[in-house]
Amino acid sequence: MINNEWHPLKNKYMKYIKNISIVLVIFSLFFISCETQNKKTTDNSATTKSDPLLSWNDVTSKNNIIAYVSEVTNPKSENFIPIKDRIATFDNDGNLWSEQPVYFQLFFVIDRVKAMASEHPEWKNQQPFKAVLENDMKALKKQGEHGLVQLMIATHSGNTTKEFKKYVQDWIKTAKHPTKNVGYDKLVYQPMLELLQYLRDNDFKTYVVSGGGVDFMRAFVTEIYGIPEEQIIGSRIKTEFDYNNGNPVIRRLPALDYNDDKEGKPLNIQKIIGKKPVFSSGNSDGDLQMMQWTASNKYKSFMLYVHHTDGEREWAYDRDSHIGRLDKGLDQALKDGWTVIDMKKDWKVIYPPR
Amino acid sequence: MINNEWHPLKNKYMKYIKNISIVLVIFSLFFISCETQNKKTTDNSATTKSDPLLSWNDVTSKNNIIAYVSEVTNPKSENFIPIKDRIATFDNDGNLWSEQPVYFQLFFVIDRVKAMASEHPEWKNQQPFKAVLENDMKALKKQGEHGLVQLMIATHSGNTTKEFKKYVQDWIKTAKHPTKNVGYDKLVYQPMLELLQYLRDNDFKTYVVSGGGVDFMRAFVTEIYGIPEEQIIGSRIKTEFDYNNGNPVIRRLPALDYNDDKEGKPLNIQKIIGKKPVFSSGNSDGDLQMMQWTASNKYKSFMLYVHHTDGEREWAYDRDSHIGRLDKGLDQALKDGWTVIDMKKDWKVIYPPR
Repeated sequence: MINNEWHPLKNKYMKYIKNISIVLVIFSLFFISCETQNKKTTDNSATTKSDPLLSWNDVTSKNNIIAYVSEVTNPKSENFIPIKDRIATFDNDGNLWSEQPVYFQLFFVIDRVKAMASEHPEWKNQQPFKAVLENDMKALKKQGEHGLVQLMIATHSGNTTKEFKKYVQDWIKTAKHPTKNVGYDKLVYQPMLELLQYLRDNDFKTYVVSGGGVDFMRAFVTEIYGIPEEQIIGSRIKTEFDYNNGNPVIRRLPALDYNDDKEGKPLNIQKIIGKKPVFSSGNSDGDLQMMQWTASNKYKSFMLYVHHTDGEREWAYDRDSHIGRLDKGLDQALKDGWTVIDMKKDWKVIYPPR
Repeated sequence: MINNEWHPLKNKYMKYIKNISIVLVIFSLFFISCETQNKKTTDNSATTKSDPLLSWNDVTSKNNIIAYVSEVTNPKSENFIPIKDRIATFDNDGNLWSEQPVYFQLFFVIDRVKAMASEHPEWKNQQPFKAVLENDMKALKKQGEHGLVQLMIATHSGNTTKEFKKYVQDWIKTAKHPTKNVGYDKLVYQPMLELLQYLRDNDFKTYVVSGGGVDFMRAFVTEIYGIPEEQIIGSRIKTEFDYNNGNPVIRRLPALDYNDDKEGKPLNIQKIIGKKPVFSSGNSDGDLQMMQWTASNKYKSFMLYVHHTDGEREWAYDRDSHIGRLDKGLDQALKDGWTVIDMKKDWKVIYPPR
């Protein structure tokens, strides 16, 4: 299981593993033209304090969710689900927080390259690092997938799990979204935070199941989402154990270990949770197989798609988007009667109040 | 992530994946001469009802465990551990249930070959199946590792996760241990069941982390151990998702996906739990890296080895055993002051009362 050929301190960035290309699903797009931000005042007055989904308008999606939860938690209902089987799985990017103009993990990659540059004077003249350091997005784009793989490897491996966690935590404290101009952790969806809490209040076990990096997410989302590390599932790179003379470390290696997207989602849910979800929520075709798996549960299940329809408060995109494309998933949702959230119409607010 | 070349219904046993050989760690030994069973009457009279570890004598191991749990759950102690970080990981074979004369999963393999034989008339004349069907253990031994891989593949893949679960559940209901003459699920260690419950009563989250097959364990141990599917971690084979015209299944493929042994244990703990355990329990060198990882926790941690010293009530083996060898682990336990259970002296009973 151990890649003995790789010595993190010797040839950190020399080795590019073939099958890492698949990780590019997470990073399939470059910088779109930046949009200006329009803030809207929000209206919370219509709902009462006892409403578990306070930031939702009185819409079909909200009513469907509450009807479902009420039914399957009612011991007298024929659709009652025992607590141990109340598994709820949520995609992250575009589902619990925003994902435009690119997945936020890519901003971490770029900022990390800049932070590491002083230790790597050679990067000044070496692509794709040169393009990043010069903020030359055109040149970066030219480097294509291979360039992205190099950036991923340089920033995500060659360190220990403990070190990597600290890099992410230091970054999230100060990094700001280029157009929203707030920390990325402020760009979580308030209505979804309420949904997570509502499900937990009804004894659902909430999981994140994301194409994003599991160690990236675990470093800071546990408190924001109220979800512990062991309920966060994502893509990951290979690792090795080093006893290190009595101070054991786990080293992060330059190779993809698991791509938690598309078919990878139900497969990883089975590997890690070992139970089929009864509730799944996503926003893209990458979540479709997880939805299909959930829809096949012997218990009554609930499939929820977030449709990005709000170009003013957030972003509007679906079938033609390079990030978070929702095409086949939308077709199946409409055909099979899954619940679709219209962000613009259904949500009173997008982000938590500041 | 999907092996499209393999079609489970067409060439079920034709393809032998190279890297599966590592799975043989689980099946490294064949049948040892059978031992006769000696039952002993047990004595529960000395302990009171309020004792959380009723089946333990008043010994160092028990006292160490209680002192540790009392200390780290005391909010006034400098060694207090927050509830969210109380992760306890337990090896399974030889630690929560017996593992002699061979890992019980191998008995499942053998019984499964016999159950499948009517669908495979060719097995009558084809090794290693012929040897199994004729109960010819000498001939089976001659087939070596390659033969075992063939048996593993034939019995563990070529089915769906749902089908496999049913095979295991049907088997455990009727199968009997060759010398103990009881169901395998009766050969769990009563003192360890009490320890699991005691830890949970003190808000520890208990996990199984085993070299055995995760889907094999999940099929029947959840109720016995009081541990849900999502807290059972083990070795596993590769799988693929099949939408199957709207009736999705996960198919089990003939290749090892993860060997949850030795370094594989701390690595899998990090992948799946994402937190370092504070309490680990094992019985062999295969658990040593998990122990070392646990010992490096910033919180005060507890490492517990089960030493098989009871040749009368269970089996006595350690440094020279082919199953559950405890050699380097015992050295480090003695050197570093980890707690070692002397099964013969420390436990009033081995198995639950019948």
